[in-house]
Amino acid sequence: MTDSLTAAIKRVAVEVEAALETLLPLPDGLEARLCEAMRYATLNGGKRMRGFLVMETAALFGVDRTSAARVAASVEMLHAYSLVHDDLPAMDDDDLRRGKPSAHKAFDEATAILAGDALQSRAFEVLAEPDTHSNPEARAELVLALAHAAGARGMCGGQMIDMVAEGQALTADEIGRLQALKTGRLIQYSAEAGAILGRAAPHQRHLLAAYGRDIGAAFQIADDLLDVEGTEEETGKTMGKDVAAGKATMVAVLGIERARAQAQHLAAQAASHLESFGPQADKLRALAHYMVTRRN
Amino acid sequence: MTDSLTAAIKRVAVEVEAALETLLPLPDGLEARLCEAMRYATLNGGKRMRGFLVMETAALFGVDRTSAARVAASVEMLHAYSLVHDDLPAMDDDDLRRGKPSAHKAFDEATAILAGDALQSRAFEVLAEPDTHSNPEARAELVLALAHAAGARGMCGGQMIDMVAEGQALTADEIGRLQALKTGRLIQYSAEAGAILGRAAPHQRHLLAAYGRDIGAAFQIADDLLDVEGTEEETGKTMGKDVAAGKATMVAVLGIERARAQAQHLAAQAASHLESFGPQADKLRALAHYMVTRRN
Repeated sequence: MTDSLTAAIKRVAVEVEAALETLLPLPDGLEARLCEAMRYATLNGGKRMRGFLVMETAALFGVDRTSAARVAASVEMLHAYSLVHDDLPAMDDDDLRRGKPSAHKAFDEATAILAGDALQSRAFEVLAEPDTHSNPEARAELVLALAHAAGARGMCGGQMIDMVAEGQALTADEIGRLQALKTGRLIQYSAEAGAILGRAAPHQRHLLAAYGRDIGAAFQIADDLLDVEGTEEETGKTMGKDVAAGKATMVAVLGIERARAQAQHLAAQAASHLESFGPQADKLRALAHYMVTRRN
Repeated sequence: MTDSLTAAIKRVAVEVEAALETLLPLPDGLEARLCEAMRYATLNGGKRMRGFLVMETAALFGVDRTSAARVAASVEMLHAYSLVHDDLPAMDDDDLRRGKPSAHKAFDEATAILAGDALQSRAFEVLAEPDTHSNPEARAELVLALAHAAGARGMCGGQMIDMVAEGQALTADEIGRLQALKTGRLIQYSAEAGAILGRAAPHQRHLLAAYGRDIGAAFQIADDLLDVEGTEEETGKTMGKDVAAGKATMVAVLGIERARAQAQHLAAQAASHLESFGPQADKLRALAHYMVTRRN
């Protein structure tokens, strides 16, 4: 199953990458450097996990793949912007991203700030364009859900908590909330997006949201385990940084074994939300398992 | 006329300020610091020129003022985010904004970056919320137009050109394009927003867009004139910075007199687009004149 999942993730990544290529064209003017930086930060060979979630949940409702790929590309742009800003000297000060210079190293700080800003705008622009869905209600809902996931009550809020909490001893519950905001909301949005595109019934959207919430939490714990146990060769990232920075993680609070058990519990719980979707959801089930067994 | 315009601008600023207060609540969690920074950057006693344009153009079509105030607040959040990021050390490195410490001075750089990011998300979130307009088509159009105005083909693109061009000799046409992107698009959007909210006929939206384009260009030249001629006491900003930085402005290329004539020409042209709107558009006409005569 994992082999065929890996193949499916790669296939979908190609589709998402193609959509990103189309949606991030290089202009002629003096602003070309900005778009180069946006492309550098986005077209970097990522796994496109968030894009995969959009594509797979959209497929449950027979959504047109071109339409779904636009939404997948949009969430990948939002994610890419967050990484560009996270890597800045004033934030995590990370010179390396996927084994390559991070955006402010490849360009400069000002360009990286602007590229992140423009990627966020572009993500919302793509969602609001009529090509994304013929129903304007669907487009407005996609914007609303992404903006909520990205903003002060989502990703940015989580990032702030992470900064405020540095050096503080957080409880497992507090860390859970931090991570739900910082990385969970965007993963949850990615799983919900298919239901929004497919104009699914509210209970179906809720099930996919619950699935997204659980794999998001599992993913984060797995990521923190990799930071402790992985190698730079496997992950292409500077390892042990979280520990060195005294960052609050589930691994730090629960220890490796209990954190791993928690991740596995969350993955199983995620899969349980998919029962009513039948065999069509097999890849999403496999993804929940993969989240907690991956090595990079 | 100018006296009554000034009073009208102040009245509308109060409405927009109230909407901002409501739309940027302070949460309880550890992320409160982020929202404090968002509020600090936004609720700063600005003139709310962009918000005024939204409110006045919306009034032409009898749009509900609560609805228009949400859109006005949204464009002010977008504008505020751009100022926070512009002031960062890696960008313009400006410690002063309206006579007060800029956001990264009042808080810190990382918080300022995040607050700008979250303000951008919040601007789109507010537009997409059903409270903004009962018609989802209107909400999607507002998002689309704002995202276009804010992104690589708008504000961020203009900012990039400004950076790339520093020290280069630009022609008046190139400076015109730079400024149309950097500050013009958002002002144009503000004037168009009323037409979108009012579900106006396309030719009416085009007229208001043309009005916005022209006052935007006039506004920028007036701003550059103030940088040369104004005092810090009048403007609350560090003066002479553009000249010191060798920034490309119309004033630098055309000289003070020709730049002033160009601004007046643009203001008159802006007013000419409003002919078909009758006396209801008097304040917008007065605003075009005010743009080029203001002292702060």
